[in-house]
Amino acid sequence: MSNSANAIAYTFAEARERVLAQVLLGKPALERVWLSEAVGRVLGEAIRADRDMPPLPRSLRDGFVVHAQSRDGAWDVAGEIKAGQMPMRALAPGEAFAIMTGAIVPDSAAAVIMKEHVTREGSVVRADRAFQSREWISEAASMAQSGAVLAEVGALIDASLVALLATVGQSQVTVAQKPIVRILSTGDEVLDIARQPNPTQVRNSNAWALAAEVQRFGGAAEILPIAPDEEKATRELIAYGLGADLLLISGGVSAGDYDFVEVALAHLGAEFYFDRVKIQPGQPTVFGRAKDTFFFGLPGNPLSTWVTFRIFALAALERLSGRTVPSQQFSFAPAKEPIAHKPGLTRFLPGQRHADGSVSLLPWQGSGDIPALARANVILVLDAERESWAAGDWLEVMTK
Amino acid sequence: MSNSANAIAYTFAEARERVLAQVLLGKPALERVWLSEAVGRVLGEAIRADRDMPPLPRSLRDGFVVHAQSRDGAWDVAGEIKAGQMPMRALAPGEAFAIMTGAIVPDSAAAVIMKEHVTREGSVVRADRAFQSREWISEAASMAQSGAVLAEVGALIDASLVALLATVGQSQVTVAQKPIVRILSTGDEVLDIARQPNPTQVRNSNAWALAAEVQRFGGAAEILPIAPDEEKATRELIAYGLGADLLLISGGVSAGDYDFVEVALAHLGAEFYFDRVKIQPGQPTVFGRAKDTFFFGLPGNPLSTWVTFRIFALAALERLSGRTVPSQQFSFAPAKEPIAHKPGLTRFLPGQRHADGSVSLLPWQGSGDIPALARANVILVLDAERESWAAGDWLEVMTK
Repeated sequence: MSNSANAIAYTFAEARERVLAQVLLGKPALERVWLSEAVGRVLGEAIRADRDMPPLPRSLRDGFVVHAQSRDGAWDVAGEIKAGQMPMRALAPGEAFAIMTGAIVPDSAAAVIMKEHVTREGSVVRADRAFQSREWISEAASMAQSGAVLAEVGALIDASLVALLATVGQSQVTVAQKPIVRILSTGDEVLDIARQPNPTQVRNSNAWALAAEVQRFGGAAEILPIAPDEEKATRELIAYGLGADLLLISGGVSAGDYDFVEVALAHLGAEFYFDRVKIQPGQPTVFGRAKDTFFFGLPGNPLSTWVTFRIFALAALERLSGRTVPSQQFSFAPAKEPIAHKPGLTRFLPGQRHADGSVSLLPWQGSGDIPALARANVILVLDAERESWAAGDWLEVMTK
Repeated sequence: MSNSANAIAYTFAEARERVLAQVLLGKPALERVWLSEAVGRVLGEAIRADRDMPPLPRSLRDGFVVHAQSRDGAWDVAGEIKAGQMPMRALAPGEAFAIMTGAIVPDSAAAVIMKEHVTREGSVVRADRAFQSREWISEAASMAQSGAVLAEVGALIDASLVALLATVGQSQVTVAQKPIVRILSTGDEVLDIARQPNPTQVRNSNAWALAAEVQRFGGAAEILPIAPDEEKATRELIAYGLGADLLLISGGVSAGDYDFVEVALAHLGAEFYFDRVKIQPGQPTVFGRAKDTFFFGLPGNPLSTWVTFRIFALAALERLSGRTVPSQQFSFAPAKEPIAHKPGLTRFLPGQRHADGSVSLLPWQGSGDIPALARANVILVLDAERESWAAGDWLEVMTK
């Protein structure tokens, strides 16, 4: 996209910043879903405690709940409290009740003593060691007071939020509607997947891989017909794509390509925020906006398309979906063997995470090598400013 | 489960080994699904290249493809090869063709020279630096030969496998049927989520959280009615649960509980592989088999249930689903602040991963503290044999 507004090549971090600076947190329309359908959705209402959590003091251990006054370090076991029962009465001086984890602590309790730390002789227990006041007691409302916000609008609903919703009695929940992401592959050499390519053609793997990722990360994917290398059809398809919440264009953006995509976008009044990033694969990635819709032009080689979706377009998708906290894609792992690269570009390379947690590079044949990406179980992120890593050095890695 | 066969408390690693030693790779029945439904499923057929990949030599860069013979380091630009085109003819001595990334390399090509590394004057290009034979050429079949296996039975279908399937023209794929996982919560104090609990009762959050995780990791979840603290009903529900591929029982397994679950399992001829693990939360976790079905007794506190599912039951679920490579849950992160614990148990504690990648512990109120788990964005795994970590030390972490 050589003729567009920006001639600057941004670093990975700068380009990511530009995405986050442009794409503000969305205010999606809301819908109500059953709890069983809520996983992976974005919370559209704050979740509040419907009562104090816990509602009454509870024991954190199996053992004995004792009165502050003992008889020379010993207590009479005057009863038992099971989970799900109210204590029969308050403790009297010199008394203990046997108590189970989760059971309600009676009034006048000094502490719970774990059963491993008492000596029991008949109906008398003795503490084997000192204890602190209110030890092993979870006080009423110590996790949350009734009405307190337990999860905010914009949180991703995972298993722990499902547990939270169930705990406060919500069998339905308000969630954000999924943003619609249209996906457009371009190029005369790209065929629908059911067709038989000749040696110069490839099947449209990018649209399907992007749709899989869009769905995984909470968007609703729509695959458009493949755009031919022809101006009018390309413009019409892009114009339709811009009717979505986000448009992903695969191919047509490298400096070597014929510029139907660029011409079409220019016709549609596109503004470009970047069109070149110092990364590999994915250098000619384009990010812009036209007709109030953000679009990404992702380089058409399969590894380039996938990587640039994950490191740039996903951030936009998550913002548009109303998610306040992005997915965690990056972490660290020790290098199994020495690794070197030519500094200047941040590289995202197919890697192997071994059983001991260390990682190494996989051989690959450039950014068209889908089999290598399929073999990888992690992506190594090589810092643009560093030349080499010794075995055992910590590397940044990206989940696959 | 004090009366069962094993009195030994295993370490975390030993207990995991026992799960993997017992639960062999499943041979699930197969079904055929459309590519759009395939993500998250387990491959039930090997995916093979339907032609050489690439079918013909391709250029890895935009630039010029040159004949081995130059005229004093210069070539006449005699044509152009676009992606999707067959070269018009072989290169003749002294000739170059302009070529795009992905385009077919003509016969008699010595190498591709990147456009950044040539000087062009009219119809003549000159190389600015030396190049190697076949540089920037991806040879025919270099990624895979026709018929080669690109992904094996048992692989998880992620976006890269979707790309692979699309590339070889598979709009349908054979996958493993999902294992059926029945989920049984136990205890008189546990109420269905739509009901109003009194202060001694809790809603059935565990079954819903487990169902969410089972579905996320490729199982089909069935939530059973809550088992009361009564022998006959418990036995009937467990017997029904054992008709699934895997049974998860939440609660009823801690030493302090009334032993209806244990009695019922004994009646059903259960064999126990472990019933205590040196972990926190989740110490009284039970793993066994009855009527040829594996079951887990997961301690009923919400954090215990969730953690023990993830560190033990998930391994069984993945094996039963036919997955040959387990999910990657564990990685490493630097401690933000000093962390200490009492050695002896491996601890799985709610944590916070910060923007710089470092992690710290979150305050929590014991294994009933669902709000703390909901606030966490990572789980810190504290080694049973180590007492403390300084700021910057590398900690094991588990994804949430």
